[in-house]
Amino acid sequence: MDIIVLKPGSSEEALRHLLKKLESMGLKANVSQGTERTIIGVIGDTSKVTENEEDAIRAMEGVENVVRIVKPYKLASRDFRKENTEISVRGTVIGGTKIQVIAGPCAVENRTIIMSIAEKVREGGATFLRGGAFKPRTSPYAFQGLGEEGLHYLADAREKTGLPIVTEIMDPRDLDVLMQYADIIQIGARNMQNFRLLLEVGSVNKPILLKRGLSATIKEWLMSAEYIMSRGNHNVLLCERGIRTFETATRNTLDLSAVPLLKQLTHLPVVVDPSHGVGKWDLVAPMAKAAVAAGADALIIEVHTNPEEAFSDGEQSLKPEFFAALMKDMRPIAQAVGREI
Amino acid sequence: MDIIVLKPGSSEEALRHLLKKLESMGLKANVSQGTERTIIGVIGDTSKVTENEEDAIRAMEGVENVVRIVKPYKLASRDFRKENTEISVRGTVIGGTKIQVIAGPCAVENRTIIMSIAEKVREGGATFLRGGAFKPRTSPYAFQGLGEEGLHYLADAREKTGLPIVTEIMDPRDLDVLMQYADIIQIGARNMQNFRLLLEVGSVNKPILLKRGLSATIKEWLMSAEYIMSRGNHNVLLCERGIRTFETATRNTLDLSAVPLLKQLTHLPVVVDPSHGVGKWDLVAPMAKAAVAAGADALIIEVHTNPEEAFSDGEQSLKPEFFAALMKDMRPIAQAVGREI
Amino acid sequence: MDIIVLKPGSSEEALRHLLKKLESMGLKANVSQGTERTIIGVIGDTSKVTENEEDAIRAMEGVENVVRIVKPYKLASRDFRKENTEISVRGTVIGGTKIQVIAGPCAVENRTIIMSIAEKVREGGATFLRGGAFKPRTSPYAFQGLGEEGLHYLADAREKTGLPIVTEIMDPRDLDVLMQYADIIQIGARNMQNFRLLLEVGSVNKPILLKRGLSATIKEWLMSAEYIMSRGNHNVLLCERGIRTFETATRNTLDLSAVPLLKQLTHLPVVVDPSHGVGKWDLVAPMAKAAVAAGADALIIEVHTNPEEAFSDGEQSLKPEFFAALMKDMRPIAQAVGREI
Amino acid sequence: MDIIVLKPGSSEEALRHLLKKLESMGLKANVSQGTERTIIGVIGDTSKVTENEEDAIRAMEGVENVVRIVKPYKLASRDFRKENTEISVRGTVIGGTKIQVIAGPCAVENRTIIMSIAEKVREGGATFLRGGAFKPRTSPYAFQGLGEEGLHYLADAREKTGLPIVTEIMDPRDLDVLMQYADIIQIGARNMQNFRLLLEVGSVNKPILLKRGLSATIKEWLMSAEYIMSRGNHNVLLCERGIRTFETATRNTLDLSAVPLLKQLTHLPVVVDPSHGVGKWDLVAPMAKAAVAAGADALIIEVHTNPEEAFSDGEQSLKPEFFAALMKDMRPIAQAVGREI
Repeated sequence: MDIIVLKPGSSEEALRHLLKKLESMGLKANVSQGTERTIIGVIGDTSKVTENEEDAIRAMEGVENVVRIVKPYKLASRDFRKENTEISVRGTVIGGTKIQVIAGPCAVENRTIIMSIAEKVREGGATFLRGGAFKPRTSPYAFQGLGEEGLHYLADAREKTGLPIVTEIMDPRDLDVLMQYADIIQIGARNMQNFRLLLEVGSVNKPILLKRGLSATIKEWLMSAEYIMSRGNHNVLLCERGIRTFETATRNTLDLSAVPLLKQLTHLPVVVDPSHGVGKWDLVAPMAKAAVAAGADALIIEVHTNPEEAFSDGEQSLKPEFFAALMKDMRPIAQAVGREI
Repeated sequence: MDIIVLKPGSSEEALRHLLKKLESMGLKANVSQGTERTIIGVIGDTSKVTENEEDAIRAMEGVENVVRIVKPYKLASRDFRKENTEISVRGTVIGGTKIQVIAGPCAVENRTIIMSIAEKVREGGATFLRGGAFKPRTSPYAFQGLGEEGLHYLADAREKTGLPIVTEIMDPRDLDVLMQYADIIQIGARNMQNFRLLLEVGSVNKPILLKRGLSATIKEWLMSAEYIMSRGNHNVLLCERGIRTFETATRNTLDLSAVPLLKQLTHLPVVVDPSHGVGKWDLVAPMAKAAVAAGADALIIEVHTNPEEAFSDGEQSLKPEFFAALMKDMRPIAQAVGREI
Repeated sequence: MDIIVLKPGSSEEALRHLLKKLESMGLKANVSQGTERTIIGVIGDTSKVTENEEDAIRAMEGVENVVRIVKPYKLASRDFRKENTEISVRGTVIGGTKIQVIAGPCAVENRTIIMSIAEKVREGGATFLRGGAFKPRTSPYAFQGLGEEGLHYLADAREKTGLPIVTEIMDPRDLDVLMQYADIIQIGARNMQNFRLLLEVGSVNKPILLKRGLSATIKEWLMSAEYIMSRGNHNVLLCERGIRTFETATRNTLDLSAVPLLKQLTHLPVVVDPSHGVGKWDLVAPMAKAAVAAGADALIIEVHTNPEEAFSDGEQSLKPEFFAALMKDMRPIAQAVGREI
Repeated sequence: MDIIVLKPGSSEEALRHLLKKLESMGLKANVSQGTERTIIGVIGDTSKVTENEEDAIRAMEGVENVVRIVKPYKLASRDFRKENTEISVRGTVIGGTKIQVIAGPCAVENRTIIMSIAEKVREGGATFLRGGAFKPRTSPYAFQGLGEEGLHYLADAREKTGLPIVTEIMDPRDLDVLMQYADIIQIGARNMQNFRLLLEVGSVNKPILLKRGLSATIKEWLMSAEYIMSRGNHNVLLCERGIRTFETATRNTLDLSAVPLLKQLTHLPVVVDPSHGVGKWDLVAPMAKAAVAAGADALIIEVHTNPEEAFSDGEQSLKPEFFAALMKDMRPIAQAVGREI
C-alpha cells in the first residue's frame, strides 16, 4: 500500500484531482485529515503501481510526498516464498544446513596455476572453485582475463578436482560460451544494475551469483534479483562483498548486517565475500568467521598459491595453508550456529 | 612515479627482493631510510606499471603500502592535451565559449509528445534534444522505453527542430541501431563501469556523454573515459549527475566541485545534469545557475510538457515555461564567467 | 501527522492495543486496510509526539514501521515563520538583499598577522572578519589557538577596520569570554550535535553561525538549530561547509543543493563556506560563485596573507589579491540573481 | 616519514625553497627525480611534524601533494605498546581472554526499572551495567535523562547486583559528579571530536569508553583516543557502533572489519555495540555473534524489560529472555576463537 501526503494548505481541488487519478488506476483511498497535513492511505493492490505511476503522482499539484510501503520486489520476497531456496549444483546444495565455500584466484592466469590452486583449495575443504576468465578492471591497460581459454582451464580444473566452477559474465554476448563451462555464473558488483545483462541471465537455467553493487541499497539489490527472476530463473544467490563508504582503511566496508536482514526479507541464499569486503589478506579470516556467525549460507574467498605474483588482487588473497587453517577454524563456529562447513 | 613504503622492521632481505623485482620491471629505486620506516621512490616510467604489478608489489613481504603518484589515466589527462577538447556536433560546438543546453524528457513516450517537447525546448533556447529510447529502470516491471521506435521519433523531432539528439545506450548489441539515429550517445551512471560497453563505444566515431557513476570517484570516472579513448574515440563528454551520499533530502548530492576540478585534471568538456542531481523540479533552476557559475560547458535538463503524466522522472522535470525562464536567467551568469548561453 | 504501518498478518489484538495507546496519547486513528498491509493515519497534533513515544510505538507488537510526516523542528521551520529572518550585526544585515562576505584566516596567529589580514579583506570588500581563537584540531599535538589572547587581537582588528567578528566556541565554559568579544559565535561542524553547547548558546543574545556536521542530514542540522532556538535565541545562521562522502579528491563534498532546499524549509539565513567545502584554494573561487548563483545569503572564505606560513588550513586559503578579484567577479552573478554583494 | 610530491614542471627554485624549509625543521631530504614527477622522501623524526607544518608545506609553490606515512597517533599505536592493554574495573578485566558484556537500558528511566533490568542482565550473564543519565537526543523536546538522580539509581543497582556501571558524559561540567558514580565513563559518537571533553576525561583516572563518530575514519578515532591518552589517561576502550552510509535499511552500518584492523593498529581493547549498529532488536543477536567471531573484547547491548514503554531506543532493545539466550549462544563462538564469555 502506498501513502500519499499532501502539502499543508493544498486545495480541495487538488485532493479531488488526486482521488480521481487513483480511481482511474483501480484504487481506493482512505483520507485522514490531520491538524497540519492530509494523508491518503491507498487501498487495493498497489503492488501493481509502477514506478512511473508513482512518479506521476509525486509530480501532481498539492502532493508533498509518496511513501511506498509495499515492497517493490515480489518473486525475491520472503512473502512470496516462505521456505529457504536451496540451489543444487552438481549435487552440492547451497542454502541448506551446510555452508559452502567457494575458493580460488581472482583471475585464471594459466593452466598450471589454476590446476594447482584448485587442488589446494579442494584439499583445504573448498566445495567450489572460483576464477575469472573475463575480468572487469578499472584500467583499460590492465590484464582483462584469458577469455574462453581461461574457461577451458577452469573446466580442466573441475574435471581433476570435482569442484563445480563459479565464473563471471561481463557481456551478454559471452553468455553462450559461459553456458558451456560455468556451473554458477557471477554478475559482478559493477554490473549489478546492468539491466540487459540481468535479463539475459534470467533466461538461462544456471544459478546466478549476484554481487551487491558498490553503492546499492538492499532494496535495489533485491530489485536486481527480481530482474533475473522475472525472466524465469529463480536460482539467484546474493553476494555481499562490501559497500563504498567514507572509510578507506579497508578496501570496502563489509556490511555483515545485510546477512540477517536478507534472511528476513528474502528466501534466496546469502553469500559473503570477505576478500573484496576488506581487501587485505590478514583481515579475511576474522571476517570470514564473522560471516559464518552472522548466518551466511556460503563464502567466497580468494586463494592464490603465490599472491606476490598474482595478476590481480594479490593483496587480498590467502595462501593455501592459511585457507586450510581458516576452514578448520570456522568449523566450530558453524556448529555454534547450527550449521556445518 | 610510485612510492613504496616498507613496514617498520622489515628485513634487508625483503628490501633486496623488492629492488630486484623493480629492476626486472626496468625501474630504478631511490631508498630513503627514515627513523621509523624506509620508503622507496621508484624512478623510471611508472605509468606503464599495471594495476596487477602494483598489486603484486603490495603483496610482497615487508611492504606496508604502495602510493601511486602518477595518474593512471593518460589520454584523458590535461597533461596529455593542454588545450580544451571542443566537440562539434552538426555544427554546434561543446567545450567552447558557448554553454550548450541539452533538454527534453526522460523517456520518449510517443511521437506527439516528443515532437511537442522538442519544439518547446528549442523555443526556450535549448541547443540539443535529449530523450531515452532504451531506459534503465530499477524495476523489471517499469516502462523500459520504446526501443527503436523511440529513436525514430527522436529523428523526426530532430528533422523538425534541427536539434541534434542525445540518447542512451544500454547494450552493446544496440550500438548499430543507435549509430543510425543518435548524434551523441549517452552512457548512463549505472553503466559507467560496464567496461565492455565502454570499449564498444570507443570504437565508433560519435561523441559519448559519459555520466558519472553513483559512487564513482573522479579518478574512476576518468579511467572510464580512458577506456573509451583507448579505443580511438577521443570525443568524450563527462557528465556530473549527483553522487550517492547519506543525505536523502535530495535524490543525489550534486557534486559541483567536480566541475572546476575536472577542468584542471582533464581537457574533456564537462556537462552538469541538475535534474538527476537533485531530483526535485523546484531545485533544478538554482542548481543549473550554480553549474554555470562553477564553469560547466553544458547542461542537461529534463523538460516535459506534462510532468504529471510523464512515464518517468516527472518529479524532476521542468515545464517548458519554467525552462524558458531559466534559460533567460542563466544568460547574465554565463556572461559573468566569460561565457554565453 | 504520523503514519503507522502494520506487519502483514498482524493480529486484531495488536491493532486494538495500538489504537488504545494512541487514544491514551490524545490522538485519533484512521485505519486503512490494504490487500497486504494495514496502515494507520494518526490524527491530531502529532507534533507533540516525542521521539521516545515514536520509538515506543515502533517497538510494539505487529508494528512494521512508523513514518514521521510532520517535521520534527518547529521554530526553525518556514511553516512557523514565512518571511526570511534578517539578522543585524552592528548595522550589517545578513539574510537581506545584500550578500555578506565573512573573510579571514583559519586561526588568529598573532596580532600583526590578523591586523594585516583584516585590513586586506576589508579592502577586498569583506563585510565581516573571521578568525579562530579556540581551534578544534584532530591532533592533540597541533596548535590549539591563542585563546583569549586571540580574541583580544580580533577586537583590535575590529576596532581598526570596523568589521564585526565571527569566532568559534568549543566549550560552554568559554561562553562568558566569547560574549565579551564576538559579534557572531560559530559552532563548528564537529560540535553540531554537542547538545549542551547548543543549549548554552541558545540562552545568549548573539547570533550563532551553526556549521553543518560532516555527516549531518539537513533534518538533523535543522534540529540542532531548533535546540538553539528552543532556548530563545532565534538568530541562527546555517552554514554549509561540505559533507563527508566517498570522494577524496576534494576535502569534503560541498552540498550546494542544500542552499535552495533550506530556503524552502526554513526562514533562517544560509551561509556557504567554500574553503572547507573543497579544501583547495584554486577551487574556492568557482565554488564561491556557484554558491552565490545557488542563492546563498552569505559566504565565509579563508584568506591569509601568507598561506605557506599559516598555522592551519594554508592549503585552502586565498591570498588577499585573489580574494579581491573574486569579490569583483561575484558582483555580476549576485546581480543576475537579484542580489548585491 | 613524509613524502612530498612536486608538480610536473615545478622549478628548481621551488625545490631549493622546499629543501631549505625542511632543513629549518631539522629534517633531511632524499630527492627522487622521475620521468614525470620529483618526489622527496623526508628523513628524520617526522612524527614531530605538526598538522600545521604539513599544511604549510602543502601550500608551498610547486608542491602537488604531501603523503603522510608515519601514523599521527603515538600512544594509541601498537608500535608504542606491543602487548594488549588490559583494563581492570572493580576486579573485572576488559581486554583479556574473557569477553565482557555490558548490558542495560538506553536511559535510566526510574529506580524500579533500572533495578529490575540490572538484576535481569546479571542473571543473563552480563558483567557490566549500562544506562544513560545524561542523554544526547536529536530533538530538544525529547527526554534528556534524569541527570544526577539517574546516576544515583545506577549506583543503587550496582550495589544490589555488583555490576560496575558504564554511563555517558556530555558536558565537561558534569565530570565531577560522574566521577562519584561511574566506573567507566562513555563518550558518545556525537562527541567523539568534542576535543575539550576529551582533554577533560584524559585528566581523570577512570576508564573511558570512546564511541566511534558516525562518520569518523579509524585514524580520526584513534586520534581522539590519543587526545585522551595525551593527558595521561591510558585506559581507553574503543567502541564500534556503526557508521553512517547510504544504506538506510539498518540504522547504521556496523563496521565489523574495524575490529581486526584495530587489533593490528592499537593495543587498546575493542568493544562492539550491535544495538546501535543495526537499530533493530531482531538483528542484534546475529551481529553480536559476528562481533565475537571477529575478535571483539567486549560487547555493549541494550536490554529493556519493556521495550514498548522504553523512553528511548525501544526498537533496538532486547528483552531479558532474548539477552540470556544470546549469552548462551555466544559461548561456543567465544570458545571457537580462543576466548570465553
